[in-house]
Amino acid sequence: MTLKVYADRMSQPSRAVLIFCKLNGIEFEEIKVEISKRQQLSPEFQAINPLKKVPAIVDGRFKLFESHAILMYLTTAFPGVPDHWYPTDYSRRAKINSVLSWHHLNLRRGAATFVLHTVLAPFLGLPQKQQAAAEAEKILTSSLSTLEEVWLKGNGRFLLGGFQPSIADLSLVCEIMQLELLDEGDRGRILGPHEKVQRWIESTRNATKPHFDEVHNVLYELRRKIRATTELPSKM
Amino acid sequence: MTLKVYADRMSQPSRAVLIFCKLNGIEFEEIKVEISKRQQLSPEFQAINPLKKVPAIVDGRFKLFESHAILMYLTTAFPGVPDHWYPTDYSRRAKINSVLSWHHLNLRRGAATFVLHTVLAPFLGLPQKQQAAAEAEKILTSSLSTLEEVWLKGNGRFLLGGFQPSIADLSLVCEIMQLELLDEGDRGRILGPHEKVQRWIESTRNATKPHFDEVHNVLYELRRKIRATTELPSKM
Repeated sequence: MTLKVYADRMSQPSRAVLIFCKLNGIEFEEIKVEISKRQQLSPEFQAINPLKKVPAIVDGRFKLFESHAILMYLTTAFPGVPDHWYPTDYSRRAKINSVLSWHHLNLRRGAATFVLHTVLAPFLGLPQKQQAAAEAEKILTSSLSTLEEVWLKGNGRFLLGGFQPSIADLSLVCEIMQLELLDEGDRGRILGPHEKVQRWIESTRNATKPHFDEVHNVLYELRRKIRATTELPSKM
Repeated sequence: MTLKVYADRMSQPSRAVLIFCKLNGIEFEEIKVEISKRQQLSPEFQAINPLKKVPAIVDGRFKLFESHAILMYLTTAFPGVPDHWYPTDYSRRAKINSVLSWHHLNLRRGAATFVLHTVLAPFLGLPQKQQAAAEAEKILTSSLSTLEEVWLKGNGRFLLGGFQPSIADLSLVCEIMQLELLDEGDRGRILGPHEKVQRWIESTRNATKPHFDEVHNVLYELRRKIRATTELPSKM
């Protein structure tokens, strides 16, 4: 039975899982769960993930959610996935687990909350919390500094000094790609000072092409829509 | 060379790592890094963990931080750790990874923030943010419901229906133990409705005794101090 991947390409962890499967030739069926249509709340999807979040997978009778856990599982359950994605060497694997643990309360919390309260909330007609955005910007900026000074230290182009990407590179870069939705001013102010981060995003994009841009296309499309909307007032 | 564990027993992830080592007969040296004395900011400790957080370990020349990553590492690097802590079966392991991923932005974010802004901040003379406490209580309450309805479903006494504890049980129960610091009213209101969670805490305590209470003693001691302080006004 083919692996089923329940995903919304607008969700950064969904994109990481989809890109990973495509890159590694894992046969799968992509089942769209559109958050904007609240499809993650349907009883059918809740039977797969009671936490009502994408991505989730079903592999035969086995159900799994939380994107990091899914990525780890795919590296083991599907033969042929190159070792660099999640090395079997337990010291190298431990370092990747360390980055993935750090991700949640730092880069994810900062980036997702900032994007929500600056561009997504007004675009979707949701309440926009300025204080939450300001606090999120602090977490995001500090996370980008940690990426430069701690996680991207070393000779390689990837996290932990690696010469090839791991699931942590893919997961964290997909997170940062949400910043593409910001207006140019915000994006430049936040990402501008972090050149090493910018080079790493490009390295990850290059290492995972053409799937990276193909899966991110919906994000680029939404960026066009948001910019068209927010530029309207100045044209009036 | 003996494993070095840098820890502050007031930190819930530090306790999880210490209890794990003691339970599994892993020889280690506990090196105290007292957060109340800001010792985690010292250059010596930053050379071990540039993120300035406990716990961290040094195993020979190998340094590692982030408690989940440390627990995973210990199960692999030290022979003789029973399989139930982090099963080698990749489907069972995946489920544990899923719980551990969920922990960060849910149970941890809720419990740690709530305890900080209700009891720790006033006790330590730090600013107490009521709105942050209210938001954290929502996350905490919802996390406890998820524990009951999702993660503690099944026949066993442990997470994911297990009959023996995993590193996720230990990590999450140590997190919840911070609620011991709350005053009786808050603690009862929050934990009271979650009987399955209470039974699971007891099961985990029993499965890990006598180390569980021995390592938690500093927490029980702080609880006594906090209660002595907060009860003063009514005696005046």
